[in-house]
Amino acid sequence: MHLLNYFQGRRVTNGISPKSVLIVNKLRTKPVVDAIDTLLSYIRKNYPDVQIYHENRPDIPQGVKVWKPGPDAAKIDLVITLGGDGTILHASSLFKVGAVPPVLSFSMGTLGFLLPFHIDDYTKAIDSAFAGRITVLHRMRLSCTFKDSGGDRIDTKAEDWQVMNEIALHRGSSPHLNTIDVFVDGQHLTEAVSDGLIVSTPTGSTAYSLSAGGPIVHPSLSAIVLTPICPRSLSFRPLVFPSSSSITLKISKRSRAPAGLSMDGQTSHVLNPGESVTVRASLHPIPCINRSSITEPDEMREAGEGAGPGKEDDWVRDINNLLQYNATFRSKALTRHQRT
Amino acid sequence: MHLLNYFQGRRVTNGISPKSVLIVNKLRTKPVVDAIDTLLSYIRKNYPDVQIYHENRPDIPQGVKVWKPGPDAAKIDLVITLGGDGTILHASSLFKVGAVPPVLSFSMGTLGFLLPFHIDDYTKAIDSAFAGRITVLHRMRLSCTFKDSGGDRIDTKAEDWQVMNEIALHRGSSPHLNTIDVFVDGQHLTEAVSDGLIVSTPTGSTAYSLSAGGPIVHPSLSAIVLTPICPRSLSFRPLVFPSSSSITLKISKRSRAPAGLSMDGQTSHVLNPGESVTVRASLHPIPCINRSSITEPDEMREAGEGAGPGKEDDWVRDINNLLQYNATFRSKALTRHQRT
Amino acid sequence: MHLLNYFQGRRVTNGISPKSVLIVNKLRTKPVVDAIDTLLSYIRKNYPDVQIYHENRPDIPQGVKVWKPGPDAAKIDLVITLGGDGTILHASSLFKVGAVPPVLSFSMGTLGFLLPFHIDDYTKAIDSAFAGRITVLHRMRLSCTFKDSGGDRIDTKAEDWQVMNEIALHRGSSPHLNTIDVFVDGQHLTEAVSDGLIVSTPTGSTAYSLSAGGPIVHPSLSAIVLTPICPRSLSFRPLVFPSSSSITLKISKRSRAPAGLSMDGQTSHVLNPGESVTVRASLHPIPCINRSSITEPDEMREAGEGAGPGKEDDWVRDINNLLQYNATFRSKALTRHQRT
Amino acid sequence: MHLLNYFQGRRVTNGISPKSVLIVNKLRTKPVVDAIDTLLSYIRKNYPDVQIYHENRPDIPQGVKVWKPGPDAAKIDLVITLGGDGTILHASSLFKVGAVPPVLSFSMGTLGFLLPFHIDDYTKAIDSAFAGRITVLHRMRLSCTFKDSGGDRIDTKAEDWQVMNEIALHRGSSPHLNTIDVFVDGQHLTEAVSDGLIVSTPTGSTAYSLSAGGPIVHPSLSAIVLTPICPRSLSFRPLVFPSSSSITLKISKRSRAPAGLSMDGQTSHVLNPGESVTVRASLHPIPCINRSSITEPDEMREAGEGAGPGKEDDWVRDINNLLQYNATFRSKALTRHQRT
Ligand SMILES: NC(=O)C1=CN([C@@H]2O[C@H](COP(=O)(O)OP(=O)(O)OC[C@H]3O[C@@H](n4cnc5c(N)ncnc54)[C@H](O)[C@@H]3O)[C@@H](O)[C@H]2O)C=CC1
Ligand SMILES: NC(=O)C1=CN([C@@H]2O[C@H](COP(=O)(O)OP(=O)(O)OC[C@H]3O[C@@H](n4cnc5c(N)ncnc54)[C@H](O)[C@@H]3O)[C@@H](O)[C@H]2O)C=CC1
Ligand SMILES: NC(=O)C1=CN([C@@H]2O[C@H](COP(=O)(O)OP(=O)(O)OC[C@H]3O[C@@H](n4cnc5c(N)ncnc54)[C@H](O)[C@@H]3O)[C@@H](O)[C@H]2O)C=CC1
Ligand SMILES: NC(=O)C1=CN([C@@H]2O[C@H](COP(=O)(O)OP(=O)(O)OC[C@H]3O[C@@H](n4cnc5c(N)ncnc54)[C@H](O)[C@@H]3O)[C@@H](O)[C@H]2O)C=CC1
Repeated sequence: MHLLNYFQGRRVTNGISPKSVLIVNKLRTKPVVDAIDTLLSYIRKNYPDVQIYHENRPDIPQGVKVWKPGPDAAKIDLVITLGGDGTILHASSLFKVGAVPPVLSFSMGTLGFLLPFHIDDYTKAIDSAFAGRITVLHRMRLSCTFKDSGGDRIDTKAEDWQVMNEIALHRGSSPHLNTIDVFVDGQHLTEAVSDGLIVSTPTGSTAYSLSAGGPIVHPSLSAIVLTPICPRSLSFRPLVFPSSSSITLKISKRSRAPAGLSMDGQTSHVLNPGESVTVRASLHPIPCINRSSITEPDEMREAGEGAGPGKEDDWVRDINNLLQYNATFRSKALTRHQRT
Repeated sequence: MHLLNYFQGRRVTNGISPKSVLIVNKLRTKPVVDAIDTLLSYIRKNYPDVQIYHENRPDIPQGVKVWKPGPDAAKIDLVITLGGDGTILHASSLFKVGAVPPVLSFSMGTLGFLLPFHIDDYTKAIDSAFAGRITVLHRMRLSCTFKDSGGDRIDTKAEDWQVMNEIALHRGSSPHLNTIDVFVDGQHLTEAVSDGLIVSTPTGSTAYSLSAGGPIVHPSLSAIVLTPICPRSLSFRPLVFPSSSSITLKISKRSRAPAGLSMDGQTSHVLNPGESVTVRASLHPIPCINRSSITEPDEMREAGEGAGPGKEDDWVRDINNLLQYNATFRSKALTRHQRT
Repeated sequence: MHLLNYFQGRRVTNGISPKSVLIVNKLRTKPVVDAIDTLLSYIRKNYPDVQIYHENRPDIPQGVKVWKPGPDAAKIDLVITLGGDGTILHASSLFKVGAVPPVLSFSMGTLGFLLPFHIDDYTKAIDSAFAGRITVLHRMRLSCTFKDSGGDRIDTKAEDWQVMNEIALHRGSSPHLNTIDVFVDGQHLTEAVSDGLIVSTPTGSTAYSLSAGGPIVHPSLSAIVLTPICPRSLSFRPLVFPSSSSITLKISKRSRAPAGLSMDGQTSHVLNPGESVTVRASLHPIPCINRSSITEPDEMREAGEGAGPGKEDDWVRDINNLLQYNATFRSKALTRHQRT
Repeated sequence: MHLLNYFQGRRVTNGISPKSVLIVNKLRTKPVVDAIDTLLSYIRKNYPDVQIYHENRPDIPQGVKVWKPGPDAAKIDLVITLGGDGTILHASSLFKVGAVPPVLSFSMGTLGFLLPFHIDDYTKAIDSAFAGRITVLHRMRLSCTFKDSGGDRIDTKAEDWQVMNEIALHRGSSPHLNTIDVFVDGQHLTEAVSDGLIVSTPTGSTAYSLSAGGPIVHPSLSAIVLTPICPRSLSFRPLVFPSSSSITLKISKRSRAPAGLSMDGQTSHVLNPGESVTVRASLHPIPCINRSSITEPDEMREAGEGAGPGKEDDWVRDINNLLQYNATFRSKALTRHQRT
């Protein structure tokens, strides 16, 4: 667990330029395609020794090598994502084995929770990243083990999946509630009769878990959040566990419905009565490059009171700007125009 | 922060008997007085070399030395509390400087969240503690720094207080809401217009913070919880921070009310507009002896599946038994008798 | 709207015995079948002029007439249900046109929210009902109108459905959130991005709406509750409208998912982007016979202070017994036995 | 109860001009004083027969008569308030006996929940009100009866008070929780261990009750909301009762703290263990003139689809504009400027 925190917020100063870069995108919209072209030209011109990779697709740009995930995958030193939050979740899903390289994420003009950089700022961001003038936030991930009703391990593809946001069990389109037994470190905690349960990372605490009523957990904390979805109980509350805990969700034999499994919003398989999933902190967090770590000398001076340069917390800004956290009731003066 | 976790759940096996014991109680009811007598006899008979201390009071038992908290206090190897949860909070308040000795807490027959042992089980509990056959849960505490509106430190007695549950700011009997600026690591997080704010430890997450809508946080996690009390906003949610964060609450100059300060339920002073308090994890947690750590060999065999011997988590049992966590709606069969 | 309240809690004293009784059950378990037999014998013996009806099934008891819902259905003076809460919901679904006869509901030994009578008490309950010595609670229902994206009415079977609990829209097994525009009396209220929305009666406020975080609304109030399911917003709160309001839910053209429709827990059809449903209070509530209305003279005397005889509110008892409403934290004395 | 709804939203078309107007303000700031002068001149010039009244103060304007509340008070046909929401609450507190005249409320440039009119629009608002071209919203009020521990009525000034928002009981600056027994129509509902309880009108549902977690209830519904303040229970939920209910709050004999009483935010007396208050819907709601009822012919045409002219609901606009109800997470395009 402590490893997860190790580089938390530390400035990475080795200054050794990445030799291989993986570009990740989900959509093929014109802005995304254009942005990839621009990035490619820029990297080739300024960092000619760098090998650029891309997932296999019919139309990958010239000179870019195809990259396939798996044990034999080519080593990647830096991941660049272009798109929304879902693109980073997708990038995370590509790295199931071993350590994950640092991720530099560009938004395409739309704000996102996991998107520190605006595509227009690409030169500054890339130069800083290649020069190692960055800090990273190690975003925790969760991994899963599945067992059948006899207690034997089930081999599923989801097994290797490591989620950045959450694992969610949900009755889906079954009309009936499901009954799930929850165990913590092997000890029975409770029997949940509900629409489903969410086991979330701190990163995921602002995603589905938040909608279901969960607390907002700072992503630099190593913790696991358990949030019920529409429980048939007045007294079910979200729980926050240390990241050393293992959480087992077992579909009760008397559950009236199976539970569909979603991992970071991707539908996986269905768990039937008697089957279970055990969730643990993964050994391999995602090192996300902080926006605030990329500051030019003169911006530092401007920063003024409050957090010092490079210390500002993107998260504080995001929960205010994106979630409109604690927007207080308006009682400001009105112009006549607004009154109608 | 990592220090706090260091011994978390580790079995302490040095086997060196404590040389000095401090007995703490708040009430002087007959059961408490009788229990103290019983404990005294037992310790004197079985551990004759141990010096027993007690806070200064007119009626402390013969042979017991008076103990005064402070820098010159006699060294204590073990604290024994007798009473409710409030008695442990009181014991915590006696140790403001330096490390805290392990605490063995007896309930007087009434369940409590911080009370692992029933007084009737005193022989087993004391023998195990004296033999070092115990594990402890290091319960985090919070410490405070106060500043006036000029930013200068204010010298208050509350400054040295280290709370186990929480620091709460509340408008008290003022009819008006107060306005408090919240800063995290020096960065402005939000302006809270509310009845007040709670900064809580994981231990305190089942106390006042829970009533105000906060999540339940496992006490072995090192984290700080910020929970608003009746905020005038639809979008204020509880927040969970890493224990390395510092949280500053500053009464806004335009606050219509000052804020009364409570520490672990004890009223302290009032913070006026412009004044602030900064809360940080204390270096000195309270090592609380776990009930589940005291198991006899034959009990271990009985435990069966689930958590292994000595590994059971008192907390799971407590949130179920004491908080009636997730009590599902009853639909059990009824006898005729119950139907009326 | 006022009509709904008209007989609320009024003692119905006409004393005119019902001439036709409809028996409703969902399950065919042995206890249910036996109970039907017992009821049949009792009614035949004591009220020989009464015609008994049952829904069409292969195995309906001898002498019982088949009853088919619809405009030409035989007139029913009293409905008797045997089973769980779902059986009453099913009985409600049989009466889509015109007024509903009073409903006498027996539980099969399992508590339920809509189940006032235990089957063992059948003689007293039936005699009181046949003698008109009862009061009823008029439980409000909701009715729906469906429109396609051009604003034209869609003819669906769900149209005639009148729900006792709620109409729920849910993304079901779609991985994506849906976007629903909510209108109140034709005025745009909000755009909801969520798992779904619930429009509930006060009766339904203790069903799905409660699990989703809605308030508990007394069933004698005429009101409509709108409760979001896992909304992607910090500031969505349940709303309570007068029963004169009409609530329109329109799947936004930019919704990423359609919305599956459930009525009283029964899956109906799917609403696609552009389609809408308008919900209004139905003119035809369900007159449910109150348990507390059936009191024998001597029980009245015993009742003592508090609510007078026949005035006790079943609902108060139910939210305490069934929902374990406001179960306070235990701190009662423990016997040794309980401590382990 | 039905009376309360009687004129709900009905257009009042008698066209009979008020003969007496009471002007109410709390603050004496320059904008308020100037606005009063402007209103006075306008009314005198255009409605010379109208007698204007004001509460007794050293500096009331020339020609204005002093008005004293009470049974012998001069009859008022229209109340005009100038100030914030608190000014209307104050106006309500002046009418403790008998029916209340319609209230026309002007904001001084600051939005408020109970403030339909901006002071700049005074001519249109006053002309419409004097011509009777208005609709009113009858906002329910609550009245109280106090009893001592022997069950005898206590004569307090609060008795005659009729609140528009809520009655709140709170431990205030007592460190201890209070224990309050709640009765509904004489039947014991629950024992609340908490910071306090709120009994609120639908109008008050967007005030203190909302901050404590209560639902938003449309002000045209006749209902009573019970919301706990920081209850020591996981399973306490807000409750909504019909306005025909009577709610009794009795401080338990074993309460560790008395409960301070606030009525519409004004501190009243303290209730000690054994004492109680019974809350009922008042017979005298406040007829508040709707903003949307004042529409000029050409505006009506512009209104377009949705609610028709004069039918728009101020409340929908207010919960969106003032409470920022369901503000969805932002993901709009950003200009470069906003990104820093
Ligand atoms: N009712 C709800 O709130 C639901 C939420 N989700 C969330 O959607 C996620 C998948 O996201 P997409 O693939 O983009 O699907 P999507 O395109 O359906 O987007 C879901 C929304 O969640 C946002 N989001 C994703 N991760 C976030 C985070 N860590 N913090 C704050 N916001 C975040 C995205 O920006 C997007 O606005 C899942 O991991 C789950 O957390 C999924 C289903 C229901
Ligand atoms: N509305 C509320 O829930 C309020 C709660 N409190 C809590 O009371 C605490 C002081 O306790 P006492 O001196 O015993 O006062 P007290 O005698 O007034 O007891 C408060 C209750 O809180 C329980 N409690 C204390 N610490 C707890 C914990 N960590 N987890 C679960 N339950 C706990 C106690 O057993 C007792 O039932 C404060 O630290 C504060 O957390 C204080 C004021 C209001
Ligand atoms: N997450 C949740 O809480 C969900 C709840 N439901 C509810 O189930 C209802 C259908 O019930 P069944 O056909 O019996 O399905 P079911 O057999 O799946 O039972 C649902 C549970 O809800 C209870 N229930 C039903 N109506 C109630 C009411 N008015 N107040 C309190 N409890 C009530 C039943 O006793 C049963 O325990 C739906 O109308 C919906 O309200 C449906 C889906 C999810
Ligand atoms: N924690 C909280 O939310 C608290 C709220 N209050 C509320 O303040 C009210 C007294 O108001 P003031 O005399 O103006 O005191 P105040 O000047 O302290 O204002 C309280 C705030 O509540 C707003 N408000 C008042 N009535 C409202 C309503 N019906 N709906 C929406 N917002 C409303 C006011 O505009 C103002 O912003 C009390 O009746 C109580 O409801 C009082 C104490 C604590």
